[in-house]
Amino acid sequence: MSEVKIIGDALANIPWQDKPLGCPDVVWRYSNNPIIPRNPFVGANSTFNSAAVAFNGKFAGVFRCDSTAREMQIHAGFSDDGINWKINPERIQFIHEDPEVSGWEYGYDPRVVWIEDRYYVTWCNGYHGPTIGVAWTKDFKTFHQLENAFLIFNRNGVLFPRKVGGKYMMLSRPSDNGHTPFGDIFLSQSPDMQHWGCHRHVMATSDGWQSTKIGAGPIPIETSEGWLMIYHGVLTSCNGFVYSFGAALLDLDEPWKVIHRSKNFLIAPWEQYECVGDVPNVTFPCAALTDAASGRIAIYYGCADTVTGLCFTTAQALIDHLKAGN
Amino acid sequence: MSEVKIIGDALANIPWQDKPLGCPDVVWRYSNNPIIPRNPFVGANSTFNSAAVAFNGKFAGVFRCDSTAREMQIHAGFSDDGINWKINPERIQFIHEDPEVSGWEYGYDPRVVWIEDRYYVTWCNGYHGPTIGVAWTKDFKTFHQLENAFLIFNRNGVLFPRKVGGKYMMLSRPSDNGHTPFGDIFLSQSPDMQHWGCHRHVMATSDGWQSTKIGAGPIPIETSEGWLMIYHGVLTSCNGFVYSFGAALLDLDEPWKVIHRSKNFLIAPWEQYECVGDVPNVTFPCAALTDAASGRIAIYYGCADTVTGLCFTTAQALIDHLKAGN
Amino acid sequence: MSEVKIIGDALANIPWQDKPLGCPDVVWRYSNNPIIPRNPFVGANSTFNSAAVAFNGKFAGVFRCDSTAREMQIHAGFSDDGINWKINPERIQFIHEDPEVSGWEYGYDPRVVWIEDRYYVTWCNGYHGPTIGVAWTKDFKTFHQLENAFLIFNRNGVLFPRKVGGKYMMLSRPSDNGHTPFGDIFLSQSPDMQHWGCHRHVMATSDGWQSTKIGAGPIPIETSEGWLMIYHGVLTSCNGFVYSFGAALLDLDEPWKVIHRSKNFLIAPWEQYECVGDVPNVTFPCAALTDAASGRIAIYYGCADTVTGLCFTTAQALIDHLKAGN
Amino acid sequence: MSEVKIIGDALANIPWQDKPLGCPDVVWRYSNNPIIPRNPFVGANSTFNSAAVAFNGKFAGVFRCDSTAREMQIHAGFSDDGINWKINPERIQFIHEDPEVSGWEYGYDPRVVWIEDRYYVTWCNGYHGPTIGVAWTKDFKTFHQLENAFLIFNRNGVLFPRKVGGKYMMLSRPSDNGHTPFGDIFLSQSPDMQHWGCHRHVMATSDGWQSTKIGAGPIPIETSEGWLMIYHGVLTSCNGFVYSFGAALLDLDEPWKVIHRSKNFLIAPWEQYECVGDVPNVTFPCAALTDAASGRIAIYYGCADTVTGLCFTTAQALIDHLKAGN
Amino acid sequence: MSEVKIIGDALANIPWQDKPLGCPDVVWRYSNNPIIPRNPFVGANSTFNSAAVAFNGKFAGVFRCDSTAREMQIHAGFSDDGINWKINPERIQFIHEDPEVSGWEYGYDPRVVWIEDRYYVTWCNGYHGPTIGVAWTKDFKTFHQLENAFLIFNRNGVLFPRKVGGKYMMLSRPSDNGHTPFGDIFLSQSPDMQHWGCHRHVMATSDGWQSTKIGAGPIPIETSEGWLMIYHGVLTSCNGFVYSFGAALLDLDEPWKVIHRSKNFLIAPWEQYECVGDVPNVTFPCAALTDAASGRIAIYYGCADTVTGLCFTTAQALIDHLKAGN
Amino acid sequence: MSEVKIIGDALANIPWQDKPLGCPDVVWRYSNNPIIPRNPFVGANSTFNSAAVAFNGKFAGVFRCDSTAREMQIHAGFSDDGINWKINPERIQFIHEDPEVSGWEYGYDPRVVWIEDRYYVTWCNGYHGPTIGVAWTKDFKTFHQLENAFLIFNRNGVLFPRKVGGKYMMLSRPSDNGHTPFGDIFLSQSPDMQHWGCHRHVMATSDGWQSTKIGAGPIPIETSEGWLMIYHGVLTSCNGFVYSFGAALLDLDEPWKVIHRSKNFLIAPWEQYECVGDVPNVTFPCAALTDAASGRIAIYYGCADTVTGLCFTTAQALIDHLKAGN
Repeated sequence: MSEVKIIGDALANIPWQDKPLGCPDVVWRYSNNPIIPRNPFVGANSTFNSAAVAFNGKFAGVFRCDSTAREMQIHAGFSDDGINWKINPERIQFIHEDPEVSGWEYGYDPRVVWIEDRYYVTWCNGYHGPTIGVAWTKDFKTFHQLENAFLIFNRNGVLFPRKVGGKYMMLSRPSDNGHTPFGDIFLSQSPDMQHWGCHRHVMATSDGWQSTKIGAGPIPIETSEGWLMIYHGVLTSCNGFVYSFGAALLDLDEPWKVIHRSKNFLIAPWEQYECVGDVPNVTFPCAALTDAASGRIAIYYGCADTVTGLCFTTAQALIDHLKAGN
Repeated sequence: MSEVKIIGDALANIPWQDKPLGCPDVVWRYSNNPIIPRNPFVGANSTFNSAAVAFNGKFAGVFRCDSTAREMQIHAGFSDDGINWKINPERIQFIHEDPEVSGWEYGYDPRVVWIEDRYYVTWCNGYHGPTIGVAWTKDFKTFHQLENAFLIFNRNGVLFPRKVGGKYMMLSRPSDNGHTPFGDIFLSQSPDMQHWGCHRHVMATSDGWQSTKIGAGPIPIETSEGWLMIYHGVLTSCNGFVYSFGAALLDLDEPWKVIHRSKNFLIAPWEQYECVGDVPNVTFPCAALTDAASGRIAIYYGCADTVTGLCFTTAQALIDHLKAGN
Repeated sequence: MSEVKIIGDALANIPWQDKPLGCPDVVWRYSNNPIIPRNPFVGANSTFNSAAVAFNGKFAGVFRCDSTAREMQIHAGFSDDGINWKINPERIQFIHEDPEVSGWEYGYDPRVVWIEDRYYVTWCNGYHGPTIGVAWTKDFKTFHQLENAFLIFNRNGVLFPRKVGGKYMMLSRPSDNGHTPFGDIFLSQSPDMQHWGCHRHVMATSDGWQSTKIGAGPIPIETSEGWLMIYHGVLTSCNGFVYSFGAALLDLDEPWKVIHRSKNFLIAPWEQYECVGDVPNVTFPCAALTDAASGRIAIYYGCADTVTGLCFTTAQALIDHLKAGN
Repeated sequence: MSEVKIIGDALANIPWQDKPLGCPDVVWRYSNNPIIPRNPFVGANSTFNSAAVAFNGKFAGVFRCDSTAREMQIHAGFSDDGINWKINPERIQFIHEDPEVSGWEYGYDPRVVWIEDRYYVTWCNGYHGPTIGVAWTKDFKTFHQLENAFLIFNRNGVLFPRKVGGKYMMLSRPSDNGHTPFGDIFLSQSPDMQHWGCHRHVMATSDGWQSTKIGAGPIPIETSEGWLMIYHGVLTSCNGFVYSFGAALLDLDEPWKVIHRSKNFLIAPWEQYECVGDVPNVTFPCAALTDAASGRIAIYYGCADTVTGLCFTTAQALIDHLKAGN
Repeated sequence: MSEVKIIGDALANIPWQDKPLGCPDVVWRYSNNPIIPRNPFVGANSTFNSAAVAFNGKFAGVFRCDSTAREMQIHAGFSDDGINWKINPERIQFIHEDPEVSGWEYGYDPRVVWIEDRYYVTWCNGYHGPTIGVAWTKDFKTFHQLENAFLIFNRNGVLFPRKVGGKYMMLSRPSDNGHTPFGDIFLSQSPDMQHWGCHRHVMATSDGWQSTKIGAGPIPIETSEGWLMIYHGVLTSCNGFVYSFGAALLDLDEPWKVIHRSKNFLIAPWEQYECVGDVPNVTFPCAALTDAASGRIAIYYGCADTVTGLCFTTAQALIDHLKAGN
Repeated sequence: MSEVKIIGDALANIPWQDKPLGCPDVVWRYSNNPIIPRNPFVGANSTFNSAAVAFNGKFAGVFRCDSTAREMQIHAGFSDDGINWKINPERIQFIHEDPEVSGWEYGYDPRVVWIEDRYYVTWCNGYHGPTIGVAWTKDFKTFHQLENAFLIFNRNGVLFPRKVGGKYMMLSRPSDNGHTPFGDIFLSQSPDMQHWGCHRHVMATSDGWQSTKIGAGPIPIETSEGWLMIYHGVLTSCNGFVYSFGAALLDLDEPWKVIHRSKNFLIAPWEQYECVGDVPNVTFPCAALTDAASGRIAIYYGCADTVTGLCFTTAQALIDHLKAGN
């Protein structure tokens, strides 16, 4: 098949392990998973859906840390190698002059992306129900909150790393206010990161592992073949939900158009730390570091809503998987 | 109490009946209700949530007409007196060059408002789930569709009759995809009628008749005291939902701020044509005609999701009701 | 069959109509039903589950009146003939020194009984959930509240008109906090009208009209054959609940023992005012006036949770119905 | 369009009224509906889903009569004109030597058909859950029960009036054990009216009035164009189910193949006696009398699960309706 | 107690381990469980509910293998010792000339039995809902599909190893279309393996571990005391279902009559591989190998819907357990 | 902070382990957990919610043991050290002359307390639904049953160790009859341990780990600061319930008044034996042994509804935790 290129920076220092000999899988786990335990600081109950980015030659990130009160919070953290993380024990205090915007109910499942000149954070933000919070930072110390992107009820808001067709683009999954048993991926567009419209349906639930609901995971990865979107899918068993993940390839210019899509999952809860925890049977990707030079991709994913894991693949392998119909 | 003025046009010919002698109610029904039967044309099963406006010295409107296939459609109609209506048997064909926008799934519960130089129609529009469709017309013959205002799942989108603070304003009720048992009223803002943001929570459910969900009804009426918003509320009995309606007074400049709100309903399903029909026990207001000269208000409301009724009040009476704590 | 005697006072002036010629029913409706409309005073939405008693040669009662806010309230009322009622537009203010007891959330479905030297009122009383409120009055003007009889969740608390075995006796129906789809009748005992214990299961749901839940209605009527308990039963159709009522005969000394029980209902929602209203298909008895001299029984029952109806029977007819296996 | 012929007997005396002048409908109601009241005999609560057939130059039938215990029973009845019915107050006692077969739990919604030399009755028969009971009679006095056709859970079993392809054919709607919110129509085949197999899916739910579940109604009517199957469909509103009915045309030789199908309903609950009763908003067809000479069809249908109505059409009108895409 | 004999072939080579010293249990696990991992071939997510039979002096079987798409499939496999299995990575392609029969939706939970001259496979087969698929093979390479045995919704179809009373016999569990919270075991009879009737209720749910639903497991084992049926039962905890299994003894000639039945479970999810996996807390038996000479029974059971386990007992031990009232 | 004293006996021999060095937690687990396996005797499936008390210088207790039939039973047991327990394989037979009281349905989740001159046991007792059973013993061999304290539906009945204000006091959690998703803690009062009244609401559900329902655990511990109540709280994840526990401080004289309450949990399911078992993710405290001399507290708690664990704290640490707002 044709050679796939990641459009982006070369980042030679992202975490990496070669695929084990004989491993038939497209994505393989880090051998020392989980990389972040449930309680990296006193007062944490769990640290899982985690968004890492390259930062000043090293790494920074925002992390979902549920407290021992089981409040859902977002914390900033830093790492030299992307594997060993130091996470601030205080949650991020988002700044906005209007308390109607900055008033805090809860926040979870963050994503981070560099666009133009700053890092944008999106997360599920409580405002009379879950919606998509947006903020920006340049130093992971001060976070400036913007208006919520959408009306409730919404989750899994994921920005594209650049404007497309002159507008900011955000994926999200509108749904309802509980443990939602449905949800498709939509795309919305904005001229100013404040008002959103021109909403497009991207992808519906399908069979098997992605039959209950789906949601975008890491920031879409620009490649020579299209936008590579890693997304989670949920299956409803008689004992609850099972969260797996796969990938899709979106059109570069009209990213609401799906070119390819996983039929088989890439990762599903097979390991003990993915099967046992606060929410059994969850693997939930929230971030990916990429090295355009080598095509390497390191995916951060939450495990059992309790700890954070890491797994690896390449853009070539993912897109071959998608093109092969898997 | 102080004298209330409606800010708007004098419309001496809107439907009207004086309040019956001795009637203690703030709002009273038209004596010949229902004014529109369930089947004003062959192929109609029901004609109920109806939006009438002044048009060329007479009246025009858009109407929810469910067909005998029980498809939810929107039809245009015309009337000389606002009471006797001639409704087109063909549903409105909204025009937009992008079939992703104009593709028709279903439409219901329309509202109509004159803003600046044209009539805008909003309705619950099916696009992989219910959202708010927007279109404009100048003649009630040709309707130009715009982008959907929001992501799914949303209903009861109601525009303000003018920009406030330099932006278009729309009320709506985000919820989920079924017979939603919850839902508050929010307000969203737009510079261009296409991208929406700066979402604000306006009003939550409360007790009694408005304890399950609430939604804005007619276009808010501008008065000297604030925006007069008539809204429906739903109570869940052991035999299903009961839809009543009341009113609230919103701040003129920051209309997401509620000054007063009905504790008691204004109209609830008491009459046979409101209690018996396709959905028992529904009174659902969608439009109001006002005469600024007299302060008269004529409210159109759907009855039992089957026929259309009319009732009357005055701005003075409504605002006195609100100020009195009712 | 043997002659049945009501143990109680002769009350020649209770409401009465002879059974229509040819009527095969055990209980027959008053020909001018409903006797109380939904809004006997301004501010009332509905007046239905009503408890009437003999009072000073005339009649008094307490009534469930839901306001136009759809708040559930209890009001006192008076009548010369038991048919035409004058109901206080102000709800009853129960008096107790401890605000933890007298604090008002809501109250509904009252019953009234004369025991020893005063009238006791019981009702469904909101205290962090529905439980059984208890109060006494001598004049239907001042009502002295006692401690709630039970923990939540409970409804349909009905006192016996005298101590049995040296204790006060109360029927009730423990259940849960919503539109309960289950519930049996239990009996509890108290030495002091304040502490209750020695709880006994009286009667479970059964088939058909009484298959979802059951609850005691009027104060049990003492007869020569046992305690005559009129009770409602609920059936779940695909369009909600249907409330009918029947009767049972309880042992005089151990009234948790059921001697006979209706297989067929006595009254079910057949009339328009019973089928159409705020809650379609409800006939719900809350009180009975009896004349020991003639054996006549006049039953007050709520209709469609909207208005109040009246129907008639005799102790002889009811007990023959029960003994015949109906 | 081509002329449609009913394949069957000429029956000049079936009930009939000409279509009212100007009536645009394909099916029109009898002007004196309902023809059977809820209580044609003492002890009946309701008499509705009714199966009438020609019998000895007059008419006989089996009827669903729910008792005042709200037990679901089947009763036989007789009529000279098909409109005025005399119904046995005792339920049918089905005869079978094995009590495992003849043991009675409940029975409802019967159909009757003449095949070869006798009348077959099918009904929803309780045997550890609802299934399809089968019996035959020659005189509507003695009914010989056969084995239940299927495993639970099943309803709306409807036999064809002759063997097709050498086998008996039965339509049914497998579902579950409650107020089923789903259900398609299937066809099963039998060499001996005792063992059934070669099951085929006939028709799924669709949009609008037939979106929740569907079930065959009267015995399919053989015509020159195919089997005419009248069937009910159910829509779920926020206040429960709405039962309407339409028609489909099935292939004569492979009747699991659908040639045409109603998009619009033929009858929906519009009349008071269809909207108000034990189950609001039900029109449920169970039988049709046909006159091959004139093409007339008289349809019996249950109204609000309470009374029985009659309506009329012709084979030509129905099939034109189907071919026109309605 | 009397000596129990298995009626069948001597099979000295079935898997076996003696009961551990001091083990008080009637059934004991294989010490090297699980015997089949979740992914015996690339593309398998889980391999669990497995049906093994003796085949040409060795063993063959059909296996539920869910793919990494989480599609439910059936695969054939072979083994020399009944413990180490080689499973075909391609699912079984069932052959039938009518695509209405052979069209594949999904298949799961197979059983296999030798009757007369061939092996019959039954499984849960998707045909507009789950029903019982039937096929036969002589070589586990070519599988000839027959008509589905029943209408939907059905699961756990288990054939008897010989005709009884001149008819083929099949156990099954009719239910509904989701994660069914109810279900009893029924028996159906067929003269030709194609048409089924004379359905009999065998066994209802009971208390404790078998209170939610039950279903037959391995092919019933003929013994001198009756048919030994091993069956699973489900309990609903607040965190989902728990699948355990027990046994029952059925009458040899009228196998719908239950002679004895487990009160205590034989195996419940106690081991890590039974408690953790795609569906936590499942032990689900699908096959048993028996040696008539020794009375040994080796039971294959699915673990956590993920892997396959093996456990052992004897006919004598099982029947003593049943007779003792356990 | 001020020095806290436990009001009670010095019990130097209660189980104890010092807090591990560097452990930041207020409560720490016993290093050899679980102390009681699931099957301490043949026929036990699980042994978890366990109530231990000091007894004759050693320890005795009552234990929830579910049998292998999954019947919920209560067993007595004895221990020299409070860690190694010998549990009677026969369930407790409670004695009462009235079979209406002593008739056994099921019993679970016991508590034990010494009051005045005897041990009282309370448990969830089946009597047409779950309620609070009460009994007393002096030797843990003979148990004398009293009347059930309350009407159904109730669980987690916990007595205070002495009268307060002249009355016995009991905490409980009224709810409904299934896997209740709601429930607050109430307090009831009794002059005679038989009739209960003067019910007071103590504490509602709150956020996070205690957002679904809460219930008292061990017998409240009297301290110089108030009654120390350890209680469990439940959070609903998308894969079921999670049971954690915290503490509250109640007023000494009016113990329905809450002085302090845990915001953070003290123990949540983090260990394998707490996360995996019959009900995943449960830590459920039922008893605490205290040593007034040292302030030590040893808490017994059920793990995953399968085994019994032990953990430690001090009164000082708990109350400091509460006062600090944790």
